[in-house]
Amino acid sequence: MIDSINMSMLCDFYELTMGNGYLLSGKQDTITYFDVFFRNVPDHGGFAIAAGLEQVVDYIQNLHFSDEDIEFLRGKHIFCEEFLNYLRDFHFTGDIYAVPEGTPIFPQEPIMTVRAPAIQAQLIETYVLLVLNHQSLIATKANRIVRAANGRTVLEFGSRRAQGAFGAILGARATYIGGCHGTACTVSDQLYGVKAGGTMAHSWVQMFDSQYEAFKRYCEIYPNNAVLLVDTYNTLKSGIPDAIRAFNEVLKPMGIKKCGIRIDSGDMAYLTRKARQMLDEAGWTECQISVSNSLDEYIIQDILRQGACIDMFGVGERMITARSEPVFGGVYKLCAVEDEQGNIQPKIKISENVGKITNPHFKKVYRFFGNDTGKAIADYLCVHDETVDDTQDLEIFDPEATWKRKTVYNFTAKELLVPIFKEGKLVYQLPTLEEIRAYCLQQVDALWDEVKRFDNPHVYYVDLSQKLWDIKQDMLRAGR
Amino acid sequence: MIDSINMSMLCDFYELTMGNGYLLSGKQDTITYFDVFFRNVPDHGGFAIAAGLEQVVDYIQNLHFSDEDIEFLRGKHIFCEEFLNYLRDFHFTGDIYAVPEGTPIFPQEPIMTVRAPAIQAQLIETYVLLVLNHQSLIATKANRIVRAANGRTVLEFGSRRAQGAFGAILGARATYIGGCHGTACTVSDQLYGVKAGGTMAHSWVQMFDSQYEAFKRYCEIYPNNAVLLVDTYNTLKSGIPDAIRAFNEVLKPMGIKKCGIRIDSGDMAYLTRKARQMLDEAGWTECQISVSNSLDEYIIQDILRQGACIDMFGVGERMITARSEPVFGGVYKLCAVEDEQGNIQPKIKISENVGKITNPHFKKVYRFFGNDTGKAIADYLCVHDETVDDTQDLEIFDPEATWKRKTVYNFTAKELLVPIFKEGKLVYQLPTLEEIRAYCLQQVDALWDEVKRFDNPHVYYVDLSQKLWDIKQDMLRAGR
Repeated sequence: MIDSINMSMLCDFYELTMGNGYLLSGKQDTITYFDVFFRNVPDHGGFAIAAGLEQVVDYIQNLHFSDEDIEFLRGKHIFCEEFLNYLRDFHFTGDIYAVPEGTPIFPQEPIMTVRAPAIQAQLIETYVLLVLNHQSLIATKANRIVRAANGRTVLEFGSRRAQGAFGAILGARATYIGGCHGTACTVSDQLYGVKAGGTMAHSWVQMFDSQYEAFKRYCEIYPNNAVLLVDTYNTLKSGIPDAIRAFNEVLKPMGIKKCGIRIDSGDMAYLTRKARQMLDEAGWTECQISVSNSLDEYIIQDILRQGACIDMFGVGERMITARSEPVFGGVYKLCAVEDEQGNIQPKIKISENVGKITNPHFKKVYRFFGNDTGKAIADYLCVHDETVDDTQDLEIFDPEATWKRKTVYNFTAKELLVPIFKEGKLVYQLPTLEEIRAYCLQQVDALWDEVKRFDNPHVYYVDLSQKLWDIKQDMLRAGR
Repeated sequence: MIDSINMSMLCDFYELTMGNGYLLSGKQDTITYFDVFFRNVPDHGGFAIAAGLEQVVDYIQNLHFSDEDIEFLRGKHIFCEEFLNYLRDFHFTGDIYAVPEGTPIFPQEPIMTVRAPAIQAQLIETYVLLVLNHQSLIATKANRIVRAANGRTVLEFGSRRAQGAFGAILGARATYIGGCHGTACTVSDQLYGVKAGGTMAHSWVQMFDSQYEAFKRYCEIYPNNAVLLVDTYNTLKSGIPDAIRAFNEVLKPMGIKKCGIRIDSGDMAYLTRKARQMLDEAGWTECQISVSNSLDEYIIQDILRQGACIDMFGVGERMITARSEPVFGGVYKLCAVEDEQGNIQPKIKISENVGKITNPHFKKVYRFFGNDTGKAIADYLCVHDETVDDTQDLEIFDPEATWKRKTVYNFTAKELLVPIFKEGKLVYQLPTLEEIRAYCLQQVDALWDEVKRFDNPHVYYVDLSQKLWDIKQDMLRAGR
């Protein structure tokens, strides 16, 4: 049953009631513009990582409603036949612009803009948000954890605690984008090329008459990847001694020096220091130490500060669910509508919560990089028909505290939103996962350290052009 | 691509390396017993709700490895051909016992026991845990939220913030088991019969020349389900007045009295009290007020205590991700192995963390209900060959603080684990989702209020029989 799920039906029911309503109100051909953006960086971080675009592309290309879907909806007795016929022939004919996967992103700026007839643009809302929210959340968390590990290997170990199958599968993909080096999830390797690996669970140790026998057998079968789990009974008293004995008896005669141990419980700082000492004294200086037990960026930072001797982190539930803040609050908001003459009319949502006010209009997003440092200075939102001339100095200002002004100079302005679909056709060459990961790490490098602090980071500038700011203020004053 | 995912490959890679290793060690036919249990109730609650069994059954019945899967694994160059052939013919031939979906469950007790040849039992670990952990997490959270709503309707609105597609789809199923009344997720209705509904987003209001026109048009199209979103511009100044005007002009002449408004921002306690007053004064006393905006059990409890006038809660991200604690820590641990004579040998995992020590042996779980109250008194774990005679008084004791003793009398002992598969054949009649939901609510009713407090609940007794306790102590003393 799970294999045959049609993602086109994974939409909030109101997308359908509104779609039917647009049709009955003669608005099916009205061209609408919707922005995807988010309001807060998870974990009070300084930036997030965009991810999930490839799955949005898959979804858009496969969008369709089967006869069973139409029949199911007809059974609700609220949709007109004209709408059901519309769904039968449904395909996406609009334009989509988006930031490439792996791009660092900031609150309030569009990370995707959809231009499409009203019914189409509305219908894709739920799934587009779901996919972008999920993978951006996990890529963002993974990037924090990878930065905490400070060059050490980080592996994704969380499938069993993920929220559903795609939480595991696409979650592993997102952790790789964020900088992880591999996963335990076999199917994520098969489908997306996230390198999967893994060695043994406690059950392997328990299945043999002795721990030593279990270790020895494992070394015999996998001499080139002998990573032994040493904490089933007692790490220091029997786990590491038994591992050393197995290494000595099986690997040493074969001339193999690379091997590993994994510790999954107990105090990581103390145990890994002791383990390192025992392994080194036994001559196993190349034996790598991996740990796994409810790790996240805070614990990793802490135990490394305490001198833990760790080569590799296996990170499970706290990364695959982004446990400390498991929601990425991306929203999908109408920002403009074309009138019958094709003029773009900006739209705004005001709301009682000031934080929920939107930036109106069809927009461009520029990122300014300093030519001397290569670092990102600010992002700049402007109306679609504006162009930034980066050969000239430019005064930018804080859209909330407008007296805070800054002149940027000697900079390169790069447009962040690139065309993905044009009139329903894919016009974007999807990068490989390796390319996305490399791009992500390079773009994170282009952020100042102040923006990358885990707690209380510098707030990166996301400013509006004077023209866009004026339009927004006029609409706020008019109350709509 | 997503449509063709084979869940058999959604396993941690170490299940496969261990499987290959068991085969090469002559252990492929060794009969193993694995328990699924969890260690802590999320949100410091008093109990959890078991969910996900139906998806485990689907998975077990569909388990298979395709030629492409085998080819992919062969490409890893670490699996022997004998093992790859084993996978080619793979199907599950073991027994599975589990608690029915919707059962309240407690830490340390098996909620599922798998008896199967080692490779099989090992291979299903990841997916079984993933499914049970995810749905039990969400059902548990949903039940808390439903209890906070105290009889009011709770709808699941979280698809766009779910962690992946199944986070949304099966998450909605789990919220229904926990007591929710419906979902916004269309495909969860289609696949699982979780009733889906929904009306309008802010974009509907913005698409018309005026808010009033948007409301009027909606009432005309859906007169029997006119729930108007009133916070796009200003709830009290224009939202509710425009809604009343639309109700008056469209619904009143049709004699319709049932309608609704939804508020998605602002102070829920204040706005709903004001809204109720305005609607009542306009004669719309049957107009239902729904709210939706980052709700959870704590906020719901709080605003109801402040006199909010709410008929319906739309709960999104905080339920579908179980935001306050998004991990259900179910584990899968070897508890016994059969020797060549078919004798069951108990197994234990000791570990440095006392909390990670397992309960050994193939076990039964009884729940004792008081005959006078109908309430659950205690759960009781014993060895598989023990039987509780509930016509006799029984002394039970705390397995940690053994001097704490209690005699139970006038009780009925009910076995919690029921046979699901026998020798690979499904022997369990899967209940409908409605039946599961009804069973869950009835079983939660059978818990004392003290166990149901959100914070600092009474710790429900999960005790071991004397025989089981003795076996465990002997193994701990022996150190394995």
